[in-house]
Amino acid sequence: MTQLLRRYLPVLDWGYSYDRSALSNDMIAALIVTIMLIPQSLAYALLAGLPPEAGIYASIVPILLYALFGTSRALAVGPVAVVSLLTASAVGQVAEQGTAGYAVAALTLAFLSGGFLFLLGLLRLGFLANFLSHPVIAGFITASGILIAASQIKHILGVPAQGHTLPELLVATVSHLNELNWITLVIGTTATAFLFWVRKGLKLMLSRLGASAFVAELATKAGPVVAVIGTTVAVWALNLTDEGVKVVGAVPQSLPPLTMPSFSPDLIQALLVPAILLSIIGFVESVSVAQTLAAKKRQRIDPDQELIGLGAANLGAAFTGGYPVTGGFSRSVVNFDAGAETPAAGAFTAIGLAIAATALTPLVHYLPKATLAATIIVAVLSLVDLSILKKTWSYSRADFVAVTATIVLTLSLGVEVGVASGVIISVLLHLYKTSKPHVAEVGRVSGSEHFRNILRHKVETDPRVLSLRIDESLYFVNARFLEDLIQSRVTEGCNIAHVVLMFSAVNEVDYSALESLEAVNARLKDMGVGLHFSEVKGPVMDRLSRSHLIEDLNGQVFLSQNEAWITLTEHRCAAAE
Amino acid sequence: MTQLLRRYLPVLDWGYSYDRSALSNDMIAALIVTIMLIPQSLAYALLAGLPPEAGIYASIVPILLYALFGTSRALAVGPVAVVSLLTASAVGQVAEQGTAGYAVAALTLAFLSGGFLFLLGLLRLGFLANFLSHPVIAGFITASGILIAASQIKHILGVPAQGHTLPELLVATVSHLNELNWITLVIGTTATAFLFWVRKGLKLMLSRLGASAFVAELATKAGPVVAVIGTTVAVWALNLTDEGVKVVGAVPQSLPPLTMPSFSPDLIQALLVPAILLSIIGFVESVSVAQTLAAKKRQRIDPDQELIGLGAANLGAAFTGGYPVTGGFSRSVVNFDAGAETPAAGAFTAIGLAIAATALTPLVHYLPKATLAATIIVAVLSLVDLSILKKTWSYSRADFVAVTATIVLTLSLGVEVGVASGVIISVLLHLYKTSKPHVAEVGRVSGSEHFRNILRHKVETDPRVLSLRIDESLYFVNARFLEDLIQSRVTEGCNIAHVVLMFSAVNEVDYSALESLEAVNARLKDMGVGLHFSEVKGPVMDRLSRSHLIEDLNGQVFLSQNEAWITLTEHRCAAAE
Repeated sequence: MTQLLRRYLPVLDWGYSYDRSALSNDMIAALIVTIMLIPQSLAYALLAGLPPEAGIYASIVPILLYALFGTSRALAVGPVAVVSLLTASAVGQVAEQGTAGYAVAALTLAFLSGGFLFLLGLLRLGFLANFLSHPVIAGFITASGILIAASQIKHILGVPAQGHTLPELLVATVSHLNELNWITLVIGTTATAFLFWVRKGLKLMLSRLGASAFVAELATKAGPVVAVIGTTVAVWALNLTDEGVKVVGAVPQSLPPLTMPSFSPDLIQALLVPAILLSIIGFVESVSVAQTLAAKKRQRIDPDQELIGLGAANLGAAFTGGYPVTGGFSRSVVNFDAGAETPAAGAFTAIGLAIAATALTPLVHYLPKATLAATIIVAVLSLVDLSILKKTWSYSRADFVAVTATIVLTLSLGVEVGVASGVIISVLLHLYKTSKPHVAEVGRVSGSEHFRNILRHKVETDPRVLSLRIDESLYFVNARFLEDLIQSRVTEGCNIAHVVLMFSAVNEVDYSALESLEAVNARLKDMGVGLHFSEVKGPVMDRLSRSHLIEDLNGQVFLSQNEAWITLTEHRCAAAE
Repeated sequence: MTQLLRRYLPVLDWGYSYDRSALSNDMIAALIVTIMLIPQSLAYALLAGLPPEAGIYASIVPILLYALFGTSRALAVGPVAVVSLLTASAVGQVAEQGTAGYAVAALTLAFLSGGFLFLLGLLRLGFLANFLSHPVIAGFITASGILIAASQIKHILGVPAQGHTLPELLVATVSHLNELNWITLVIGTTATAFLFWVRKGLKLMLSRLGASAFVAELATKAGPVVAVIGTTVAVWALNLTDEGVKVVGAVPQSLPPLTMPSFSPDLIQALLVPAILLSIIGFVESVSVAQTLAAKKRQRIDPDQELIGLGAANLGAAFTGGYPVTGGFSRSVVNFDAGAETPAAGAFTAIGLAIAATALTPLVHYLPKATLAATIIVAVLSLVDLSILKKTWSYSRADFVAVTATIVLTLSLGVEVGVASGVIISVLLHLYKTSKPHVAEVGRVSGSEHFRNILRHKVETDPRVLSLRIDESLYFVNARFLEDLIQSRVTEGCNIAHVVLMFSAVNEVDYSALESLEAVNARLKDMGVGLHFSEVKGPVMDRLSRSHLIEDLNGQVFLSQNEAWITLTEHRCAAAE
């Protein structure tokens, strides 16, 4: 019982040994993360098409729940860029931005996503996330970064523009260029330039000036806060809202409210597939971050328990006015670097944000949306990494195709089509690669027991014995290939009396391949040719023994290829004598 | 040029050496096949929901075209049971049976199928058919046999009943039982019983009576013809049409007409996916038969050229009043057994059927539909083979799941959903199996250079060296599994200083797995643990050398596991001294 409780509530593990030193480290980390999160949460809510407070609410209860159920000590859970984009794309298909239905749909999406993650965790199905290959993830994140940045240009220009694909966004933005608001443009470009400078130039300058690394770090993290304060004050003091500068406006001053997602079957049906996609992408992002940070301290995370933690966080978001959340890369790294030792740091961050939600929200009334757009653009452009194209091109054409297709399809047809196509393309490419396995004809290296490819090495062969080493597991996709291959090799070489299949790299023989081997055996028998196997692995042999193949085999099973060679070539000598 | 012509027109190969002996053998085979095909063609047209003459037309020009382009010497192309069922299912979704639109849709389906097959052949994409695993094909054929038999019961009972799934068919048949026509029932059951007896009892009886095998064979094949003649004469002589017995009716007396498929974009869109499914299933059936027959004479078929042959046959069917065709199992075996030597036998069969179409069609006016239903039922019940369930259960649970799902889904949701689900389930099961590969910790068999699983053998180990043999190719589906596994093994065993990955059964490392290995390397480096590889295959090493992994490796690449063992354990001795 205690065992089970400890597994599902990791807080019991670290809670018992919590001490003063951990407390002070966690509190400092929480302070830094809170400062970073206030503008970030507002900005991501904007990206998701939700009112700004939704971003802050989505950071409070979810963090607390993750602290109870999650296994990572440093992961910071909340709204992140890619999940916000996916939310906007999914919810935008069922409701109009700015309506009550839109917010409820976002809650429902969080609820479905939370339920799905929780269920996967209980069923220990975390491995499903592996169907997203690294190139597909990399391509998807890069394309999402570009899409997100493109979707924010309208705020910088002060024009209206909607769209879920790059062509749509660009066309919509350009077609409204005549409505350009010059003051918004000045604010937006200044904020963007300032934030880029903070990110690239400030840290270097401060360390040249002799500031400590800690101060330099803190100043960099506070950059967005400075931009927010500066532009807010400017808009307020110069009355720029009268000039058409769009601002955040009135934000309710309260703790996260109790909310209910909708259980309408139509809505659930419309959001289920997007919720699953979003959950898997969020989970993959979160687990990668958590695993990287855990490894640095020789700690472990449990992916199945992580599903439960993230599931609980999303369910929490659904009932407290938030929207789908996951473990974010930048916030987690900041939390870790700032010295967070336990999930308690997350709890303190939640308290900090709760104070902000009740006390500071009136201050963001005059915060221009252009500034938030600038924070988003600067943050997401770091996600864009086209070097994956070059890396996969030089390593493997199949992976290059997968990453290119994912990027192109995400940009041109939207995030959901893009990631789904990426997964399907990866699977098809894998099947294609294994459908024509590498099969080497081998011969014996003179005077040894080693057998090597006759095309690469000088080896002994015998025209009556055809030895083939199969470098792939045998299953339905390549079963017929093997049939064809053996048939064509045997009909070409008319002296062949024995075929030996060397199974050293065959890790599986499925039922289709078994039937193909049976067919090969029957056909070779009709031709008067023997079929033999060598170096069959234990688990493969166990299974083959349960079929009729071995008893019907027109030949033998040899432990080693050398044994097969000696037996079959001696045979010949005996026959020749 | 001649080379290319010979590849695409195999007739040039066998045509040159055609002689009198081949001619007489081919003509005898053609006679037997023609006798068998007349009732079969009418019956399959009925099954496809088309007028009876469509079945005969579908056997004439397609056979001729296949004789020109196909590579099998014995394959007989024409309407077959499963493809007829698929045609009924696909066309039934876009048009009402008995209308002109229905016949045009069937032509369009043949056109799309022919075009698709032809294209696959030109692009040499025949391997795509391999995505249908043997258990999925077996389950699908069995379920189709049951569905076809169930769909014919209405003709035996003389009641109207429509449906594309087993529950639909049974409910529709039972709900019309009050309209039962007793005379039709007598004809139908008598014909069915007679045909079963011909198939099971007659041959045995004849050989007991001392008849030659040839006569016994011919008598068996002529069984359906006898049933057809007997019941037709009975209906005509006793005027049973007045009693409500449904008959074939007027059949035009002509050679295959010139027809045009429809090129309406809506129709093409509706039929494209069914056409692709039908093509692949037909191709798989045809190639299996062709390959089996070719092997018996040590001949070869070329699967890509078979696609062109079948594509041409279907295009021919589309323009001459037919419907989708493929190489049939029973007709091809009969053709082969009757001694057909070249595709000329097919050409002679086409002539025989053309004579039948112009001269004999008035004779089938009074042929009862119940007799045709009886021929279909007896023919398809031989397709039903539930032993596949038992065979896969004992061999592999994954294959059992695939075959069961295919049967259940085909029967309950129809042929298209059934086969598509079967393919998807097979692929997912394959990915699942490879997602958690077998990884064995190995140690050295004392005094040898062999390394074996420490759980199965008594071997030497060293607490500082963890040697893992990975029995699977590394790719995105299992990349994270390996990451997790190594991480957990290393954090458990706190003395571990070296991890050696033995790659003897790793046939591929894709980009995702490369990144995982890089991550493992970086994390182990952080922990002060070395990462080494041994027995990496040539093609895998070639690719790894193109990445940064090898140069950044916190360890070495050893040619053999033994070399790794000696180097790393000696290291320890040196360090201990």
